[in-house]
Amino acid sequence: MRRWNGWGDESTVVELPANGARFLAERIGAGQALADAGLEQVLARVPASRLAPHPLISLDAETRVRHARGQSLPDWLAMREGEFGQFPDGVAFPETQEEVRQLMALAAERDWVLIPYGGGTSVAGHINPQASGRPVLTLSLERMNRLLELDEESQVAVFGPGANGPQVESQLRARGYTLGHFPQSWELSTLGGWVASRSSGQQSLRYGRIEQLFAGGTLETFAGPMALPTFPASAAGPDLRELVLGSEGRFGVISEVRVRVTPLARQEAFYAVFLPNWAQALQGIRSLVQARLPLSMLRLSNAIETETQLALAGHPGQIALLEKYLALRGAGAGKCMLTFGVTGSPALNAASLKQARRLLKGFGGVFTGTLLGRKWAENRFRFPYLRHALWEAGYVVDTLETATDWANVGHLLDKVEASLRDGLAAQGERVHVFTHLSHVYGEGSSLYTTYVYRPGGSYAEALARWRTLKTAASEVIAHNRGTISHQHGVGRDHAPWLPVEKGPLGMATLRTLARHFDPDGRLVPGVLLED
Amino acid sequence: MRRWNGWGDESTVVELPANGARFLAERIGAGQALADAGLEQVLARVPASRLAPHPLISLDAETRVRHARGQSLPDWLAMREGEFGQFPDGVAFPETQEEVRQLMALAAERDWVLIPYGGGTSVAGHINPQASGRPVLTLSLERMNRLLELDEESQVAVFGPGANGPQVESQLRARGYTLGHFPQSWELSTLGGWVASRSSGQQSLRYGRIEQLFAGGTLETFAGPMALPTFPASAAGPDLRELVLGSEGRFGVISEVRVRVTPLARQEAFYAVFLPNWAQALQGIRSLVQARLPLSMLRLSNAIETETQLALAGHPGQIALLEKYLALRGAGAGKCMLTFGVTGSPALNAASLKQARRLLKGFGGVFTGTLLGRKWAENRFRFPYLRHALWEAGYVVDTLETATDWANVGHLLDKVEASLRDGLAAQGERVHVFTHLSHVYGEGSSLYTTYVYRPGGSYAEALARWRTLKTAASEVIAHNRGTISHQHGVGRDHAPWLPVEKGPLGMATLRTLARHFDPDGRLVPGVLLED
Repeated sequence: MRRWNGWGDESTVVELPANGARFLAERIGAGQALADAGLEQVLARVPASRLAPHPLISLDAETRVRHARGQSLPDWLAMREGEFGQFPDGVAFPETQEEVRQLMALAAERDWVLIPYGGGTSVAGHINPQASGRPVLTLSLERMNRLLELDEESQVAVFGPGANGPQVESQLRARGYTLGHFPQSWELSTLGGWVASRSSGQQSLRYGRIEQLFAGGTLETFAGPMALPTFPASAAGPDLRELVLGSEGRFGVISEVRVRVTPLARQEAFYAVFLPNWAQALQGIRSLVQARLPLSMLRLSNAIETETQLALAGHPGQIALLEKYLALRGAGAGKCMLTFGVTGSPALNAASLKQARRLLKGFGGVFTGTLLGRKWAENRFRFPYLRHALWEAGYVVDTLETATDWANVGHLLDKVEASLRDGLAAQGERVHVFTHLSHVYGEGSSLYTTYVYRPGGSYAEALARWRTLKTAASEVIAHNRGTISHQHGVGRDHAPWLPVEKGPLGMATLRTLARHFDPDGRLVPGVLLED
Repeated sequence: MRRWNGWGDESTVVELPANGARFLAERIGAGQALADAGLEQVLARVPASRLAPHPLISLDAETRVRHARGQSLPDWLAMREGEFGQFPDGVAFPETQEEVRQLMALAAERDWVLIPYGGGTSVAGHINPQASGRPVLTLSLERMNRLLELDEESQVAVFGPGANGPQVESQLRARGYTLGHFPQSWELSTLGGWVASRSSGQQSLRYGRIEQLFAGGTLETFAGPMALPTFPASAAGPDLRELVLGSEGRFGVISEVRVRVTPLARQEAFYAVFLPNWAQALQGIRSLVQARLPLSMLRLSNAIETETQLALAGHPGQIALLEKYLALRGAGAGKCMLTFGVTGSPALNAASLKQARRLLKGFGGVFTGTLLGRKWAENRFRFPYLRHALWEAGYVVDTLETATDWANVGHLLDKVEASLRDGLAAQGERVHVFTHLSHVYGEGSSLYTTYVYRPGGSYAEALARWRTLKTAASEVIAHNRGTISHQHGVGRDHAPWLPVEKGPLGMATLRTLARHFDPDGRLVPGVLLED
């Protein structure tokens, strides 16, 4: 059963290693656990629905609870405390495009607000109902999860928008294909959600971001359906797919997704290399991507993340040996771990591996083979579960991300980390902060920063601390040439900073489009655009 | 001096080889040359300008003639006959973004129509003034052609929008970089024009289409300027760059372009392989691109194009020897020439070459080394000059292009070629038609079709024949899952078929955007959107 107040299935538990709590206690002080609410307690607070019964709509209280919040840190705190605030008045589970249209017609006729819902994994407040005079219907697409068509010659697959990562991959794998889109939320997030929020997967270096994978489909809007035909490329005017990508539900409901797929690779491997320091590591990873080596994954942890990962890896004895080996070869204190992958034909993989090793050696890289790479691959979707373990140990963990041009990566990283590290200094609190680059491009890189802090004595305090930190980092990002989101979208949490990036005319353009597709402002008001 | 009534510089003359006219005469009958008008004749017909003199605007008649037409076939016929129809009332040559804004303010104040003008190489009627009650000002960006900034770490260059291919490449080359964007129009077409029309270059396989190269910049609109900051990638809402790409002047004037550049490659080579027939050739090229080999160029001529190219190559003795060699190895009548390029480091190039040769061998490919590849590279920008030679021999040549998914490539190619080959059958005229695939993708390919016909006895007849052929092919493309343009844009000539592709809501969306950016419909009315 999926957790109602956290990440993933109840049967999956990721433990904090024995030395993990000690490692954090040394850095930011002893943990401060807060008491959680029970589901019964929350159910008792769900108000009566404002919707009349309808065969396509569930008014069940638990269903409403389970669709009220995403996975942002404020969502987490609200769920843990049992203070949800708002609930949808009902949740619909359409099974066809026709049912989606029926429900939208009903919403127009009866003046409802609609929230399109994929996997409920938003970390930016996309799917949370707001207080409204209008009833709120959440439109879960989870039953529209089938592979509907596969054109093997063109390598294009047609899916229902509600297919989640495992559903996408298992249906393709049975035919010998993969989408190759693996965001950390992969176990729960959906194809439609990826498109709506411009998601990027861990192997985007090979397969591309969802922008490159999304070949077409259908958007149901209040101004009618918009069909996006598939073409390999087109010069016939602005690309309307690009309006659906990142529309975050504001323009319509994605009811069908056509994606570019790839035959399963014959060979795949991940390797770890340690660089002696951040300056050399940064040059090394930039050189790799700018040399256009056909790698499938690149990730670089800064020194604190490397240290933290090794400390939390368990097996302290083995890690100590590894560190001794690395230090002997020049990667001692301050070392940074770089992981890279090759995916494809053995011959090209071998050529790429050779080039990558040679290039990294020039920056002092110490190659350690596939062991840590394999670990990374095994644990690639487990990080979100760690929030549970840290929470129980009395710590709050959140992440934030941006992307910027290479010339600005070092500067922005320093500023973002400092804004978080020192963000609670006025309260005498320390924050443990570390960063990796996980999506790299010729032009620049994403920056993915994790921060761990203590909740203080109450939920209110925990949320206030989060707001202080999130605001400080977002200000730094927006005013230092970073995008307010590289892979998670804008939602409500990032909306205040979007105008810095899009400018006044850009914002007016998005508002014009929202009015065009949704004249009555029925779709997720407040998301993407604050008004 | 650039030709006022044709392609390129007057000093560049491409001759039809001796056997070329015979080859065509055998296929479609003897040529029928028409008499050309002289420049003086045209100048005498330029009406008085409706604009008052202004320091930024030229009212000179020859300047107005030289900015009245692009390079479409109807443009060609109009220029050759000297029947231009409409001329701009004046041509402005702003040198700064500020001057662009001044001119736009003037246009708004005095109720002018504005035509943004790059290299004047449109083949779809983008820059032709139409009869209008409002004076028409053409805004040539040719003086805004400088490399303004180069961030070598992020590999991002900032240019004025009017830089043409040679200006872009020479300024970058001096710093060790290339944009790598080489459309056939490269000698004359401009960065701003490439962005506005979603251009694609011959090496898009390595460098990407202009969509991938365009990192940001500024669009001057009648609702204010829209600055597009550079990010390597972003999930912050719909990508507004994608509204500028393909906007064809309807939304605003591009006043600055930021592009992703690449260090000059250490090694580059082009190779030719002959495949025994079209079916195997098609499978071969699809396999190459779907295997994701890091090639930099792929082009496949069908059997008639291969035959035509070899016939028009000159050196019939050498060609006969080559054909004997190929036939001995299984590539006889019906053979198709595939050209591919590798660009980058010698080690990766060698690995790619080896893989490509092995793969093509599996489809019966006969490798011929670099000789024909070198020929292709030397002549890559010469094709447009051939229109002159053919015209003088009494033939009209035009090209059209589309793109479609692989599963549909063979079908669409057959239908397009048949629509042209048989297009004048009712008049007892034959048309010589051939095709190549020059931009390939995992999902599908572009189709680039050349057709040669006889003009008949008059300009009116030549134009009527073109209209019959163009309409027939465009109908086939639009109603058989092809895009109405893969690399040249919509302009006026393709606008009637855009609604098939974009659908009613898509068209309404583009109209909403045009009104949003240009409420008085001042920018190139009729382009992209017919209304």
